[in-house]
Amino acid sequence: MTGERVVIIGGDAAGMSAVSRIRKFRPDAEIVALERTPWTSYSACGIPYLVGGVVDGGVARLVARSPEQHRQQGTDVRTGHEATAIDLAAREVAVRPLDGDRYRLGFDQLLIATGGTPIRPDLPGIDLPFIHGVQNLDDAAHLLDHAEGLADRCQRVVVVGSGYIGLEMAEAFVERGCSAVVVEQAAQPMGTLDPEMGALVATAMVAHGLDLRCGVAVTGFEPETVLTDDGPVDADLVVLGIGVAPNATLAAEAGLELGVKGAIHVDERQATSAPGVWAAGDCAESRHLITGRPVHIPLGTYANKQGRVAGINIGGGHAASAGVLGTAITKLCATEIARTGLGEAEAERAGFSVVAARIETTTTSGYFPAAAPMTVKVVAERGTGRLLGAQIVGGDGAAKRIDTCAVAIAAGMTVAQVVDLDLAYAPPFSSVWDPIAVAAREALKLL
Amino acid sequence: MTGERVVIIGGDAAGMSAVSRIRKFRPDAEIVALERTPWTSYSACGIPYLVGGVVDGGVARLVARSPEQHRQQGTDVRTGHEATAIDLAAREVAVRPLDGDRYRLGFDQLLIATGGTPIRPDLPGIDLPFIHGVQNLDDAAHLLDHAEGLADRCQRVVVVGSGYIGLEMAEAFVERGCSAVVVEQAAQPMGTLDPEMGALVATAMVAHGLDLRCGVAVTGFEPETVLTDDGPVDADLVVLGIGVAPNATLAAEAGLELGVKGAIHVDERQATSAPGVWAAGDCAESRHLITGRPVHIPLGTYANKQGRVAGINIGGGHAASAGVLGTAITKLCATEIARTGLGEAEAERAGFSVVAARIETTTTSGYFPAAAPMTVKVVAERGTGRLLGAQIVGGDGAAKRIDTCAVAIAAGMTVAQVVDLDLAYAPPFSSVWDPIAVAAREALKLL
Repeated sequence: MTGERVVIIGGDAAGMSAVSRIRKFRPDAEIVALERTPWTSYSACGIPYLVGGVVDGGVARLVARSPEQHRQQGTDVRTGHEATAIDLAAREVAVRPLDGDRYRLGFDQLLIATGGTPIRPDLPGIDLPFIHGVQNLDDAAHLLDHAEGLADRCQRVVVVGSGYIGLEMAEAFVERGCSAVVVEQAAQPMGTLDPEMGALVATAMVAHGLDLRCGVAVTGFEPETVLTDDGPVDADLVVLGIGVAPNATLAAEAGLELGVKGAIHVDERQATSAPGVWAAGDCAESRHLITGRPVHIPLGTYANKQGRVAGINIGGGHAASAGVLGTAITKLCATEIARTGLGEAEAERAGFSVVAARIETTTTSGYFPAAAPMTVKVVAERGTGRLLGAQIVGGDGAAKRIDTCAVAIAAGMTVAQVVDLDLAYAPPFSSVWDPIAVAAREALKLL
Repeated sequence: MTGERVVIIGGDAAGMSAVSRIRKFRPDAEIVALERTPWTSYSACGIPYLVGGVVDGGVARLVARSPEQHRQQGTDVRTGHEATAIDLAAREVAVRPLDGDRYRLGFDQLLIATGGTPIRPDLPGIDLPFIHGVQNLDDAAHLLDHAEGLADRCQRVVVVGSGYIGLEMAEAFVERGCSAVVVEQAAQPMGTLDPEMGALVATAMVAHGLDLRCGVAVTGFEPETVLTDDGPVDADLVVLGIGVAPNATLAAEAGLELGVKGAIHVDERQATSAPGVWAAGDCAESRHLITGRPVHIPLGTYANKQGRVAGINIGGGHAASAGVLGTAITKLCATEIARTGLGEAEAERAGFSVVAARIETTTTSGYFPAAAPMTVKVVAERGTGRLLGAQIVGGDGAAKRIDTCAVAIAAGMTVAQVVDLDLAYAPPFSSVWDPIAVAAREALKLL
């Protein structure tokens, strides 16, 4: 396989995580990465903190490895080059450079890592220039320019949707001194949480000065106005936070099989339906570790992991993606939020008979001055007692404990086994019975 | 078994954790708890924070449930009553009240939860009144009185030993405005860590203004002086932090079998060598989850868990203690420290052939202003790749991640499986590859 050429479409986490693995297994491979934007290997998750001013230095600050750094390591990174078509029969990609003539690029193996795009609902006025999605660094630069251009006026920001990005962007604009209205169609924010946990987030949002309007649907946009079924809302700037759709058009047009939510269908090795063609990251499916079903959960961690797996397989090694639990974490000021596995309703929809226990405790020993409230909910399978999911809302130090549950779920542990875990305790860090163990014990009582 | 009397010797965590379980299974049981001090169910782990002034309100603040509260729930708590002998043949305990006449108390079942005592090395002057151990609230009250009595003078505190308690007490006295010398016989502080991780703690101790003297042995005490093989050290007050020995004299004198380090030998159900006699907490053995060997690791979490297990079994249920990993955590100002499982040298002593990987990373995404250094070391079994242990030293949010490893070890996971875990990521909480996964990946490379 000397001289084999691997083409990667997309120069962010999934695409570039593959490179070092390919190089390890096939030092002689030619690797060409096509990237539309000027950026590679950046942290899109950092954009809200850039907007909020927590992180300074502009969008370049979020770049973990620049195109030039990749080139120094031997990767032919072509920024400003967009892949416009994949010809599976000819094994070629059609490329349109921003400057220069279109060309076709042959490949022996292809990794599609085209990412995702913020969902733009098909509503009147959706293309107005004051509406922003937040996904790549070009989006971020554009959003920052717009926000800074409004700096002299009273800024009224409307965030549509109240998932992780919606929450983080709303907080970011409040940090900038704007007023932020969050419009959410559901009865509670954070649809990835069960409703009563979402209600805790709602309380925190209001306490943090956000104008949260739940049960309100956006019906359209007009200049300086968001139209809703609850009346118009003034807006200088709108941020879309209602989810991310896979960028799978290229793959679909090439005839590759799509799967759940239109994401590129892949197997555990990140192989698509065509030989030698792989996909990883926000454009591709994952497999849920509990249900075994394909899911589309666009997270930076999965992009990195799937890129690594694809890279090993492209290089001729053997790796399989482990499956995902939808583990996610965020914060809204002093309130931390995390979830993993299946929520209560989600588990029931997946066909499990479940018990759910929710406990109120503190982040440290109760007598510690830093003790902050913390709520933990766990979901377990009736009968087996197997832990299926957990959600946490609480103060400083609360949310990263979700990892304890993520590991326990991955290991197939029962809540009885979770009660027995040897978790770390000292007064500044925890109550003597760790909150996770307390929640598991409550679930055990219900089983 | 109506009217059965259960006698509990020791009214702290292990003893009183048993009560609610006994009551659940045997609502009709008479439960008598004998406690030497005026206190029940307190957090000895909180004492350093009381001394340091982080927690105020005096020793009563550390009491989770007072004798009166226990009495209201139907337990006959006898504070100021010391058990002086156990007569297994007659099934009686000899009791000496502080006020009143000695008596004998019959039992159907007995739980020995006599705790531990700070080790007092057999050195000249060890009984001088300026030398303090820190284990129960009487110790704490005595220590606080002494420290407050010295308030007008320049206070020079010497801490002998640099484990968790030594570290926490040294920090506490620095918080009070004292100078603190820490004398440690080993080359590095924190003997439960591998030496290079202990060296990170040493750096933090010095940075925090502690006068750390490693490789120095205490040879004796004279008024206002600690004698060492490196010369005398001035001291107004001395704290012993060289470990805790099990209070097993009562048990031994009654003829019960002792085990490792003189702790009361128990099986997984917390049963001693005599029928109907149980032991739990700092006075008893535990079983190490990895080696399967008996160990004596006096920790509050184990006292609570073992007390619960003993209570279920005393009540006629069936419960077994899960085994321990020695998971422990502490902080020294902004430096957090944690460990679980086997250290590198410890694993080798236990007969494992191991690889060890150590990584340097940050507590948050590197571009985040709050990013603090964090070092993670993992130890894995050569051949199988099974995770055997982990140690963490780092900034805010670093140490509680040890739980991720504690769960993975309990589940018997390999480092390859740890790399695949779906751990939570957002820039304020972690790098996109979680530090635990990064360390596991490094270990995987060495396997």
